[in-house]
Amino acid sequence: MKVIETVDAFRDARCRAAEPLGLVPTMGYLHEGHLALVRRARADNRTVAASIFVNPTQFAPTEDLATYPRDMEGDLEKLEREGVDLVFAPDSDAVYPAGFDTYVDVGDVANRLEGQHRPGHFRGVATVVCKLLTIVRPDRAYFGQKDAQQCLVIRKLNADLNLGAEIVVVPTVRDPDGLALSSRNAYLKPEERAAALTLSRSLHLAREMYDDGVRDTEEIRSRMQALIESEPGARLDYVSIADAQTLDEFDAIDRPALVSLAVHVGSVRLIDNALLPSRLGAG
Amino acid sequence: MKVIETVDAFRDARCRAAEPLGLVPTMGYLHEGHLALVRRARADNRTVAASIFVNPTQFAPTEDLATYPRDMEGDLEKLEREGVDLVFAPDSDAVYPAGFDTYVDVGDVANRLEGQHRPGHFRGVATVVCKLLTIVRPDRAYFGQKDAQQCLVIRKLNADLNLGAEIVVVPTVRDPDGLALSSRNAYLKPEERAAALTLSRSLHLAREMYDDGVRDTEEIRSRMQALIESEPGARLDYVSIADAQTLDEFDAIDRPALVSLAVHVGSVRLIDNALLPSRLGAG
Repeated sequence: MKVIETVDAFRDARCRAAEPLGLVPTMGYLHEGHLALVRRARADNRTVAASIFVNPTQFAPTEDLATYPRDMEGDLEKLEREGVDLVFAPDSDAVYPAGFDTYVDVGDVANRLEGQHRPGHFRGVATVVCKLLTIVRPDRAYFGQKDAQQCLVIRKLNADLNLGAEIVVVPTVRDPDGLALSSRNAYLKPEERAAALTLSRSLHLAREMYDDGVRDTEEIRSRMQALIESEPGARLDYVSIADAQTLDEFDAIDRPALVSLAVHVGSVRLIDNALLPSRLGAG
Repeated sequence: MKVIETVDAFRDARCRAAEPLGLVPTMGYLHEGHLALVRRARADNRTVAASIFVNPTQFAPTEDLATYPRDMEGDLEKLEREGVDLVFAPDSDAVYPAGFDTYVDVGDVANRLEGQHRPGHFRGVATVVCKLLTIVRPDRAYFGQKDAQQCLVIRKLNADLNLGAEIVVVPTVRDPDGLALSSRNAYLKPEERAAALTLSRSLHLAREMYDDGVRDTEEIRSRMQALIESEPGARLDYVSIADAQTLDEFDAIDRPALVSLAVHVGSVRLIDNALLPSRLGAG
């Protein structure tokens, strides 16, 4: 496994790599969710590249950039064990040199939900993923369904700017109790971790209601809200039941829906989602 | 010479092309200025590609998109004669399919001069050039110094988003009387064409003053303005004397400067520029 820190050196290595090449972009602090992406990339491609880069432009000034968990040594061990060929681990100056001033805005689908609650977040995501896709030029790039809106933003970015990758979305990996894996779970104290189960429980409730034939989103949403509000350690940010492609909010579910939510637990903000009807293993 | 109208077909042809590949992006209605780009690309590369696409997103609603001059047949003849290998001539839907919603903003350098007078113009330019560079993946891309700020915007775009092309800027081509070649010159009535010479004359004046040792930009600018105002057929939009890299306006010329101006002549808005000190042949 080769670990490369500069854009030019990565481009050189990429030129010599066997095709097709799959890329797994990450912000490090890797968990089984990331490794599921790597395994899928390993199965699909002759070369697997991963990137480790905590992207400053997708954090608001009030957010947790400085304290975002990092473990480069542990991450490289995990990637090596999974048979990754190339790791791109640039420092911030390599990605954003002095005078950097160009941003990519993906329109409507980026302005809802997380985009509304985290202004500038998807501009930062779209910009760094655009750069990664133009630097790495992967045949396929892998993202987790856990960040459902991010997947939609990246699909749109890739299509609209003709970046030429196939975007592969891999199902969310969960702990046995249902909590979706996230690097930010590392922040949770034990009692907060218990409260955090309210996210997957409320999604489970939504799925049960849907399977029982309920299509009215107000009915589903209010039951989910009540469940979350009954958990004293949790504070709801939003619940959305929306078109799974456009994120247009639904009154009634008559096409595939994305149920997504964001909840504060202690000082941590967690997100999770489910598709209705559920796709096999899609969370 | 192969003329290709779709993104996928162009990508296929590009994969089989001999390296290096040079791209000349144009909006068609080709004149000797464009052909100078093609000849330079021909000298530098084994494969030469040109694109012909009148890009709607760089025109404001009030501008001349509908009437922008077009001559596809004549353009293809000229390109064939210059030994171009591949022409990418997509229609608008191939570049901007339904639902297109992603734009690239190059910051500061795009917000001045033309950016101030044509809001959204450089957003459209940066977006379409980003797309062309990601579709064509040229080793080199060629642009004319006539559109000096556009060259700066594209250099920044290419560097900031790691698009990986070498951006080559080719000197402005002029008619024997000094008028910079532009597709929009086709709009000029004979008496307007005479008035249009005020642009190159005022740049010539600036160069003479500079060569005589004048460095005070207010002095140069006011003499240029007076010259332009003495031409009844011309109406000045702006004169700028600015840092040739950042476009920061100068009080005194103590580093390489770009003198640029925009002038309305009849219904036509013309731009031109000169570098001080002049680079060999750079207009």
